[in-house]
Amino acid sequence: MLEAEYCSQAKVTRQYFMMQVLEYIADVRRAVALARGHERTSIGFVPTMGALHTGHASLIRAARQQDDFVVVSIFVNPTQFGPQEDLRNYPRPLERDLAMCREEKVDLVFLPSATEMYGDGSFTQVRVELLSRTLCGAHRPGHFDGVALVVTKLFNIVQPDRAYFGQKDAQQATIIRRMVRDLNQPVDVVVCPTVREADGLAMSSRNAYLSPEQRTQAPVLYRSLQMVSLAIAKGEHRVEQLRLLACVEIQSVKAVNIDYLELVDPETLQPVNQLGRQVLAAGAVRLGAARLIDNLLIDVPD
Amino acid sequence: MLEAEYCSQAKVTRQYFMMQVLEYIADVRRAVALARGHERTSIGFVPTMGALHTGHASLIRAARQQDDFVVVSIFVNPTQFGPQEDLRNYPRPLERDLAMCREEKVDLVFLPSATEMYGDGSFTQVRVELLSRTLCGAHRPGHFDGVALVVTKLFNIVQPDRAYFGQKDAQQATIIRRMVRDLNQPVDVVVCPTVREADGLAMSSRNAYLSPEQRTQAPVLYRSLQMVSLAIAKGEHRVEQLRLLACVEIQSVKAVNIDYLELVDPETLQPVNQLGRQVLAAGAVRLGAARLIDNLLIDVPD
Repeated sequence: MLEAEYCSQAKVTRQYFMMQVLEYIADVRRAVALARGHERTSIGFVPTMGALHTGHASLIRAARQQDDFVVVSIFVNPTQFGPQEDLRNYPRPLERDLAMCREEKVDLVFLPSATEMYGDGSFTQVRVELLSRTLCGAHRPGHFDGVALVVTKLFNIVQPDRAYFGQKDAQQATIIRRMVRDLNQPVDVVVCPTVREADGLAMSSRNAYLSPEQRTQAPVLYRSLQMVSLAIAKGEHRVEQLRLLACVEIQSVKAVNIDYLELVDPETLQPVNQLGRQVLAAGAVRLGAARLIDNLLIDVPD
Repeated sequence: MLEAEYCSQAKVTRQYFMMQVLEYIADVRRAVALARGHERTSIGFVPTMGALHTGHASLIRAARQQDDFVVVSIFVNPTQFGPQEDLRNYPRPLERDLAMCREEKVDLVFLPSATEMYGDGSFTQVRVELLSRTLCGAHRPGHFDGVALVVTKLFNIVQPDRAYFGQKDAQQATIIRRMVRDLNQPVDVVVCPTVREADGLAMSSRNAYLSPEQRTQAPVLYRSLQMVSLAIAKGEHRVEQLRLLACVEIQSVKAVNIDYLELVDPETLQPVNQLGRQVLAAGAVRLGAARLIDNLLIDVPD
């Protein structure tokens, strides 16, 4: 399924002299070891599924700023898609992605095939219990197991000092932070702020699925989260009231269906009954062919 | 539960000038990084639960021979014991273990507490499906999940180039080999031959549980496996016949109870109906307070 685009890859590789584009794990290991060389070189890593946008660029820039050698992986990971999900249709604008990587001065792009990553399949599962079962995990069974597996594999292949993730995928970031801690993975997880369009819509590769009309409707999710934040600042602390506020706002746009809208503990991701010092307001909605997620980490005034 | 012996550790540490004994993950990382230094130093790692015997010594010697810097961990891992198992009573002769490590010229002993390893617990599970459910896995639910978790953690802490395991724990070795492959863990797994007493009994820390009389009975497991091997060499290829042969031999000793006696595929660990080119004959028996395991990897003549 992923084979088609790799045919054009050898050609693409030749266009970029500064940046390595590698398909094989062994080559990546060698290149990273060489980069690390004799002295202490820090390796920054941005794992992606491609279809890169400004959000990804902000991660790459953060890595570029902190680390000596920046690795980006582009891999549409089949194990994190459910059978009814958009694995086949997920956008794969490889040449544009590589152009952006070159522009952002990425040192190495790891571009494996599914075969290179999984061979004859994986008997081994990595599962972050509790955190993987709520929010998106409840609506996408197995999704975060697939994420935990592929991120563990990528960490072991690239062996970065720091890895960069977006706050937009708050649950993913929380799960990976916990996994790194539980498994003692020798990597610092850096979570960077959500990058938004001018109207507030969180950058996402899946925004490409939106029709022009849907695109004008999509910011309602962020707007609803902002309303929650504002209400909390004004003293509304009743969780059910806050949820209702957000849901009513979202439902004002008929085309949008709510998967969930929750106020959860930022560490455990479990719904809260009363507000602590910080709360994560997180939602997922469906709009046409797109499933959109967003969240706000909100400080609660005493 | 593990705290008692660590009180005497500072004292113990001072006795050995050549060998580092470290309790904290951060210290181990620092020591390994320092050892690796500016040039290519290879790190060999022997994870153990202590109660070291000649079998462990053979692993350490293999590491000593191949690697520049040898790390041994001693950690009685609670997550691989079932609630009814021998976690409390597992032998912990710490000073003798450290003496053996010193004798075998170990560079670093990692001696963590359960708190250092697990803190407030692990949400994350590492599970090697299929391979973990047969043989000992069927009799010790969760055991190999605990092994996979702790070995992954230890690999991430020590970051060895090679890790050494005994063929005596054939299922464990197979599971770890598969896990390393599935997760792309950057370590070579080296499996060393089973070391036996003069009468054939496989070396095991749990042999300490045997009374003198039981000790004379214990070699029956190995003897039964040898009978299988001999019968195969003589042309007996009927799996049920071979199993029966072994079971009858074991049952000749009344005090011994069979947990399982199987002929399995060495890669998948699934019972075979007919012999391939190689077969793993593996058994587990209970004798008094001890659960003993053993196995033979048998080449099948055409």
